[in-house]
Amino acid sequence: MHSVAGLGEFELIARYFRRPERALGAGVALGVGDDCALLQPTPGMQWAVSSDMLVSGRHFFPDVDPRTLGHKALAVNLSDLAACGARPLGFTLALALPEANAAWLQPFSEGLFALADAHGCALVGGDTTRGPLNICITVFGEVPPSQALLRSGAQGGDDVYVSGTLGDAALALQCLQGKVHLPPALLTQARQRLEQPTPRVALGLALREVASAVADVSDGLLGDLGHILQQSGVGATLDAGIAMHLLAAGAYSTGASGLFSSQMPVAQLLQCVLAGGDDYELVFTAPPDRAAAVQAAALASDTPVTRIGRIDAAAGLRVVDGRGQPLPGDWKSFDHFA
Amino acid sequence: MHSVAGLGEFELIARYFRRPERALGAGVALGVGDDCALLQPTPGMQWAVSSDMLVSGRHFFPDVDPRTLGHKALAVNLSDLAACGARPLGFTLALALPEANAAWLQPFSEGLFALADAHGCALVGGDTTRGPLNICITVFGEVPPSQALLRSGAQGGDDVYVSGTLGDAALALQCLQGKVHLPPALLTQARQRLEQPTPRVALGLALREVASAVADVSDGLLGDLGHILQQSGVGATLDAGIAMHLLAAGAYSTGASGLFSSQMPVAQLLQCVLAGGDDYELVFTAPPDRAAAVQAAALASDTPVTRIGRIDAAAGLRVVDGRGQPLPGDWKSFDHFA
Repeated sequence: MHSVAGLGEFELIARYFRRPERALGAGVALGVGDDCALLQPTPGMQWAVSSDMLVSGRHFFPDVDPRTLGHKALAVNLSDLAACGARPLGFTLALALPEANAAWLQPFSEGLFALADAHGCALVGGDTTRGPLNICITVFGEVPPSQALLRSGAQGGDDVYVSGTLGDAALALQCLQGKVHLPPALLTQARQRLEQPTPRVALGLALREVASAVADVSDGLLGDLGHILQQSGVGATLDAGIAMHLLAAGAYSTGASGLFSSQMPVAQLLQCVLAGGDDYELVFTAPPDRAAAVQAAALASDTPVTRIGRIDAAAGLRVVDGRGQPLPGDWKSFDHFA
Repeated sequence: MHSVAGLGEFELIARYFRRPERALGAGVALGVGDDCALLQPTPGMQWAVSSDMLVSGRHFFPDVDPRTLGHKALAVNLSDLAACGARPLGFTLALALPEANAAWLQPFSEGLFALADAHGCALVGGDTTRGPLNICITVFGEVPPSQALLRSGAQGGDDVYVSGTLGDAALALQCLQGKVHLPPALLTQARQRLEQPTPRVALGLALREVASAVADVSDGLLGDLGHILQQSGVGATLDAGIAMHLLAAGAYSTGASGLFSSQMPVAQLLQCVLAGGDDYELVFTAPPDRAAAVQAAALASDTPVTRIGRIDAAAGLRVVDGRGQPLPGDWKSFDHFA
């Protein structure tokens, strides 16, 4: 790894982050290179805005593959747009780097732009500076007024769903931290989920006018569902038996090298599913009479969706086993300041 | 200074950064607390977006008064909107903190909100995490299409202007770094400019359809004017004699404890004016027949404006003395990666 001798801030931006005008979307009137970017909103639409900051050593390992880091830095922001039912338009990137290092910047920008291009989301501006590695992306999207998906709309009797799989990212993290051992094939699979999460943008769009409340699972299912419950003034009961099947790595359980044969306690796996972070799936609610519409949204967006429980009118979050019996446990979610 | 025991991310946001709904502007449909903020653009307007990241030890001293830091973190972003002629609407704040410290957060948020309220600019969302102190703000404003002030419109024969005063921030920084000595009264005055810059938002709005090109002076006059020259394909000649009068601290020069009696070389002071950073004034150009309109904009916005040179059709940046003779010197501007 060699730093680029004498590479200044403006050269750095030009070399790795300025792109041909054609790469900008129709809504971008002016991209990188002036004091501000200029965006032209689609008439009548609302703007959805979200900002996430990733810190080295806290949100990623300092030696993580910069290509996957570029992907993840944008993915976690796109996931917020997905949870809002907004269509991505553009983003700003602020980057503090210990040094202007080509061997790092090249793959980082490639990973970033590969995901940006897949979602038609243009880099419109930002900032670079020297400092401890820190990546802050602010993303913009649009959504028709009154169709934005909020956390506050869940009602007693609604079903609770999650997209995709849950817990693999937390499992990979625990393995990489040396806290658990995973067979190599499982680690590879789980690590992919940790380092290159898939923002559920298409599902979010399909859930407009279907879901009653949505959040993305960034801090852990229970914590993020907890936001929905708190902001909707309701409670929920989750089925732990179903939840266990959300662990993608669990699919390996029948094999001799599988997860459940690796003698990890079930409670530890369930903890990954329910309280592990970094999944970037959607947790959402919908009235029972919208179940067919939920399945249609899942099909239309090619995204698996699983019903894992129901909303209760009474406050509180209950986790029950297959027979409806409460499961003991401290289901504390991940908090960046806890 | 005591850290707040057990203060989690969400409590932290609620305590210091969530504000009553009435504090949000008319364009903010949903503020802090969901996956995204929702903003309702004024029909027909363009959105101006800018993002700046401030790193401890690089953009501010680690022990700087958090109240002034809160002010400055937003001010540098509002300055970008000013340079674009955009009216501020809202901002996101991403904050990495070594610890959740009430004695720091309280004054930081007060300094931040005092400036935000003065400009009707609402905090709509963001992120907090533990990490080396880093503040990333992304600001949004609006401007009528085709009225945005760009860097690319300067033409040969245009006058070059700067707002307010220049060089005091750099002078204060050099003094605080122990590189020069300043009399206490001068340091107090200059330090105010370094730590609490005034974003020239009103002037930027008044310069719509008056200025031909605008940039804010964040990295130093020559560097930021250089962006205008490069993006407009022109050159410029600046009058160093006039520039010297831009140093507010220079106004003390007649007194016995003044700057010019403190035996600082004139060349060093001129370096502060021309190449020092952190002034957050506007440098802009306008055709000579718009001189009266420029003065009217200055009056309307209650912002001093000084003509310091002219745009040349030929490329290159020349600094001349009062007799038009080229001044020797290496006018290298501040570059965050140089």
